[in-house]
This record gives sequence, structure tokens and C-alpha cells, in this order.
Amino acid sequence: MNKPLILVTNDDGIHAPGIAALVSAVKDFGEVVVVAPDKPQSGQGHAITLSEPLRLHSSNIFDGIEAYECSGTPADCVKMAKAIVLKDRTIDLCVSGINHGANSSINILYSGTMSAAMEASIEGIDSIGFSLLDLSHDADMTVAEKYARIIVAQVLDKKLQACRLLNVNIPAVSENEIKGIKVCTQGKGIWVEEFVEALDPGGNKYYWMTGKYKSFEPDNESSDIWALKNGYITVVPSMHDLTKYEAIPQMRYLEKI
Amino acid sequence: MNKPLILVTNDDGIHAPGIAALVSAVKDFGEVVVVAPDKPQSGQGHAITLSEPLRLHSSNIFDGIEAYECSGTPADCVKMAKAIVLKDRTIDLCVSGINHGANSSINILYSGTMSAAMEASIEGIDSIGFSLLDLSHDADMTVAEKYARIIVAQVLDKKLQACRLLNVNIPAVSENEIKGIKVCTQGKGIWVEEFVEALDPGGNKYYWMTGKYKSFEPDNESSDIWALKNGYITVVPSMHDLTKYEAIPQMRYLEKI
Repeated sequence: MNKPLILVTNDDGIHAPGIAALVSAVKDFGEVVVVAPDKPQSGQGHAITLSEPLRLHSSNIFDGIEAYECSGTPADCVKMAKAIVLKDRTIDLCVSGINHGANSSINILYSGTMSAAMEASIEGIDSIGFSLLDLSHDADMTVAEKYARIIVAQVLDKKLQACRLLNVNIPAVSENEIKGIKVCTQGKGIWVEEFVEALDPGGNKYYWMTGKYKSFEPDNESSDIWALKNGYITVVPSMHDLTKYEAIPQMRYLEKI
Repeated sequence: MNKPLILVTNDDGIHAPGIAALVSAVKDFGEVVVVAPDKPQSGQGHAITLSEPLRLHSSNIFDGIEAYECSGTPADCVKMAKAIVLKDRTIDLCVSGINHGANSSINILYSGTMSAAMEASIEGIDSIGFSLLDLSHDADMTVAEKYARIIVAQVLDKKLQACRLLNVNIPAVSENEIKGIKVCTQGKGIWVEEFVEALDPGGNKYYWMTGKYKSFEPDNESSDIWALKNGYITVVPSMHDLTKYEAIPQMRYLEKI
């Protein structure tokens, strides 16, 4: 069998420690190509760049690994990787991360890390987003890297089959506190925003978004939120079909207008 | 019954003709408050602004309507509307649009219009995104505005019940060519990107994203893509739970590592 072609990307930017850990985790499995943002792109969701030009430059940041930095969003990186860098070669796996910070529960929607992985999954590529529950730049990636390697080995072997996208989150605990890997549902909850108000040096008011996550189902043992709190690495099989099929019959009242 | 409180937003910016049409469509149904981006934010997906301050200024652009322009993304607008402008008053309905351009099929993921509506739906608010299949700034909004009014009247009356989010697309045809309203599934397909390469005035290469939509199921009469091609206004009941539940048993092989 040919060596698998693995695309690596992220949303914290090509200079973030998390992507170095992910490159290290996957580099022995096949041919690795990195296309990542040239600057942090956290919270970019599934943004794409249509009204501005994009830049793409090769980078020697990872020793012996073909790498490019892109001026666009995480989703742009995947599109450019596929169309320009890899010229529509078959990509066997796309991995995104390791994100500095959680992408469990509703965070999947805001996450650039997960959007990059989702973009690849839309293209029919098996894709995994990895996130460590530690926002700091200096987060210890040792445990996350180890489990990323374990999960990637399994997925390259068994493939994702009925699913094309995994959302993997890793609790920020030492290795002996990890209880195992748990396949979960996307925990139900929201961010309750608070906006810090202040005046800029010119005396103009500004707002800065912050907030607290609120779970709607803290005791649901099948949710990623519960499992992460209880020391598990979580894997949520995910998708991009947002149709709420069960609501279709009910909404047919709109057809009778 | 109290007059319903209706939040209006969009992604093309507060100065776009589409939001004026939507304000006009809903203003007689209740108390209308507009919080919209101060500039175009198309393709922003579910981006949120965490690393920069946000600005919010009142606007008198809509005669007799309380309105604010926000420096952030469409999702930021909804968060600021809820937390700052409306100070957690109960919002009965959030409408987003009318977008200049389609948000059918996979476009729901890239769309700022739909992300604003989805953000409101995450907050438990009945939400509808409206999009007209005409990208031009001067698009004729007459038919779209008329049907937005009809659909909003129904939803205010009957509520969304099991669903919190509708993705409504309107074909760019004259009124007598509209076949009716059809409740649909999110059509399966992708954008096949092409990147136009050129040199900037400084001689540096840039890329500009363009592409063509490719349907995977052009003959599926339950999909929004088919229905729009055949003259229907489409309504896709949508959601933010991205869990692919049916893949959970299959992925349990990861738990045995």
C-alpha cells in the first residue's frame, strides 16, 4: 500500500505549539503536508475569504516536512491545500489542531479547528479535529500528542466509514488521570456572554466579549461535556448535514400558505 | 398578547438593500430592533470576535425603528443584541437577511446570514434566515420581501415547535413563476474551488477564490437545490447538533485502544 497522504492544519496558526505536536504525532504514518494560517484564527468558525486575495507561502518551520502558511481562514487553508498545493491528489486523512482550548459541545460551531476538519470532510476526506482543554500558549501537549497518535493509527487502519468527521477533545490532566477514550454526543449547552465595557484611549466606548459555558445536561453521561469532566478523551462523530429531519412533517404548514 | 419582539440582522451589513426589505417585511408584526454589521460580512460562517474589542453604535437608518450597527460578525451582532441592547429581554423571533445570494445546501455552513440565525436558535429563539438567489447589490427584493412577510406571519402564529431554525431561500424569478413554498432537506453537494492566480502591483503572487457548486443529488425532489431550480421557495428546518448519532456504535472501536 502507498504511504497515506495526511494534511495537517489548525486555527491557532502555523507557529502555535499545538500544530507542532500534531505534526510530530502523525509524521511517521505517511506523507505529511501542512497548510496552516499565518496568524491565529481562533473563533473563525467556517469563515471563508471571497472578497480579498489570498497568499500562500512555503515554510520550513517543520524539519523535513512540506509546509505552507496561508493568509486565510482555516477553511481557506483546506481549500487551498486541495486545489493548489496537492492539485486534487487523494488526501487520505486531514487532521486539525491540536487546538489550544476546548472544542467540545457547541464550540464545534465557533471553532476554526473544527471548521477546517469539517471542510475536509465535506470534500469526502476522513478528518479529525484535536483540541486540548488548555487555552494557554504554553499548554503541555504531551498527553494530547500521544493520544492523537493512537487515534490516527486506528483511523488510518479502520477508516471512518459511515462518518467523515471526528471531534476529539482531550482533558488537561496528567496521563495517569486519563480514564480512556469515550465516543460521545455533542453536549447540549450555550455560552452565556458577558461584555466587558470600557473606554479606549480616545474616550470611545468598546465592548470585549467574554462568557461562561452553561451545560443543559451536566449529568448526561453520553455527552462530551460529562466525559471530559470525568477524565475521558472524547470523540464525537460529527457531520455537516444540518437538516432537522424530524421537524419536516411539522413544518409542512408553511406549504399551505 | 404583548407585541412580539423581533430582532433583525444580516451579514451584508446594515446598509444593504436586503435588510431594508426584511425590516419592511416584519415591522408591522411587533416591536422591531435591528442589530447588524457595520460592513459586509459575507462568508463569515459562525465566526465570533474574541481577540478584539467590539463597537456598537445606534443608527437612524430605518425610519422609526431602533437600530444599531456593530463592528463584529453576524454572530457577534446577535450576542450583543441579546446581552447589551435587549438586556436579556425575551426575543420572540430573530430574522436574518434578506441575503444577497443563495444559502441553500452546504452554503448554510459558510453563511453569515444563517450563522446569525443559528446563534439566535442556540439561545432558544425561533429564528429564520432569508436568502434571495441573486448576488447583486441591486437585486429586486419585492418577491422575497412578500414571502418573508407571509412566512413570518405564520411562524409568529404557529411557532417553530420542535425546530428552532429555518433556512429559507427564494429563487430569483418573478412572482408569477413562484410555484409555492416547499419544506426540504439540505441538498447534498460541494463547492469545487478554483483559485485565480495573478500578480499584485508589487509583483507578488496572490490567489482569489472562486468556484462552482456541484450537486450530488440533482434529481432529489426533497432537496432544496432541486426545489429552487424548479421555482419553489425552500424552507429547510435546521439545527446545531452536529452529532452523527448513527455512527456512534461503529466508532466504539476507538474505546478499546
